Amino acid sequence: MELKEELKRKAGEKAVKYIKDGMVVGLGTGSTVKYTILKLGELVKDGLDIIGIPTSIATEKLAKEMGIKLGSINDYQVIDLTIDGADEVDRNLNLIKGGGGALLREKMIAHASKYEIIVVDESKVKSVLGDFPLPIEIVKFGYKRTMNVLSTLGCKPLLRVKNGEAYITDNGNYIVDCKFERIDEPAKLERRIDEIPGVVEVGLFVGLANKVIVGKKDKIEIMTSSGDSL
Amino acid sequence: MELKEELKRKAGEKAVKYIKDGMVVGLGTGSTVKYTILKLGELVKDGLDIIGIPTSIATEKLAKEMGIKLGSINDYQVIDLTIDGADEVDRNLNLIKGGGGALLREKMIAHASKYEIIVVDESKVKSVLGDFPLPIEIVKFGYKRTMNVLSTLGCKPLLRVKNGEAYITDNGNYIVDCKFERIDEPAKLERRIDEIPGVVEVGLFVGLANKVIVGKKDKIEIMTSSGDSL
Repeated sequence: MELKEELKRKAGEKAVKYIKDGMVVGLGTGSTVKYTILKLGELVKDGLDIIGIPTSIATEKLAKEMGIKLGSINDYQVIDLTIDGADEVDRNLNLIKGGGGALLREKMIAHASKYEIIVVDESKVKSVLGDFPLPIEIVKFGYKRTMNVLSTLGCKPLLRVKNGEAYITDNGNYIVDCKFERIDEPAKLERRIDEIPGVVEVGLFVGLANKVIVGKKDKIEIMTSSGDSL
Repeated sequence: MELKEELKRKAGEKAVKYIKDGMVVGLGTGSTVKYTILKLGELVKDGLDIIGIPTSIATEKLAKEMGIKLGSINDYQVIDLTIDGADEVDRNLNLIKGGGGALLREKMIAHASKYEIIVVDESKVKSVLGDFPLPIEIVKFGYKRTMNVLSTLGCKPLLRVKNGEAYITDNGNYIVDCKFERIDEPAKLERRIDEIPGVVEVGLFVGLANKVIVGKKDKIEIMTSSGDSL
């Protein structure tokens, strides 16, 4: 296993120790939390009883294969704990998410969660966010105009393409990847982007993560928000 | 013609006088602006040369039938003038829109417009907004939870239904009609609703209308924003 993959696995697997019998657990999307789900599948086979709430169609499929019982956010509106990945994390536990395209569902589930744990390899931890282009989900109608409005905030917006065609989210929208120089005030930027008509959701997660588990070469680092109680 | 219909016609037709040759004109949706479009169709037959930008599939269809040349907001990102209806208007020219289901496209086009004229009959003018349930467009995923979150803002949210099924917008989303007691601070409420993950757009239009043409029994009243220059 390649080193980076090994760090993802370390972080992803570590997170399952916070999952307890009877919990409703939000299941994130991506290449790190995949290891959480695989490990969770083993625990479920050994008798762990939880309900998983998937954040994407891809995660739903994987969790089903692993034999994890699933529910929906409509039926379980309070989620005990969510484990998810991130594309970038700063030291204040602000996140950029959406590289995998599931940012809207991930944000709704994070918002519904009592506790959010993020699992990443060490390459994702940055002093300032913005190296990774910020994913923003926008409606198809008038997307070129929405992209132009986004560019007035100081970024280069690029429509996400997959197999030669515009990428479509699970909710039927486009994603624009917006390269900022650096994101100094994530909360403020999130609000400004949220207010643009045509924007469905932005991949900035501010004040949502309680704990970040970082897979490092020599150890696992755990970053914790000030209000952490787990 | 019934009186209310006559007042709608008066207001709707009055608005065309602001349209000049060569303009890019946003075309709203609803039972009042319909009269604007019908009148505009006559003027176009008489030689008026404009490009219309429709705010809904219904308006696109009507404008086409009237022989109005149409463009899209992607191709004409600055709109000279938009004429649209509203479900409620206060004396500060704040609006509730979305009774017709087109609030997202209407808001995008209002946002792109140099000048926005609203046409209504006098029953729509209120001292405080909120009598009309506020329409909010939300994604299908987790809609029950989004409705619960909305209710914490102090409203009764009701999923819009049409012909026995959930109403689907032109963008593939649901609409929730939220009955507040009264909306005292529309700008603040708009921001709070915009920030909820799962909300696509809210039918509060704050600071977007420049002029409101009100069809009254005995006259036409014109309400104007402080920065009005037309």
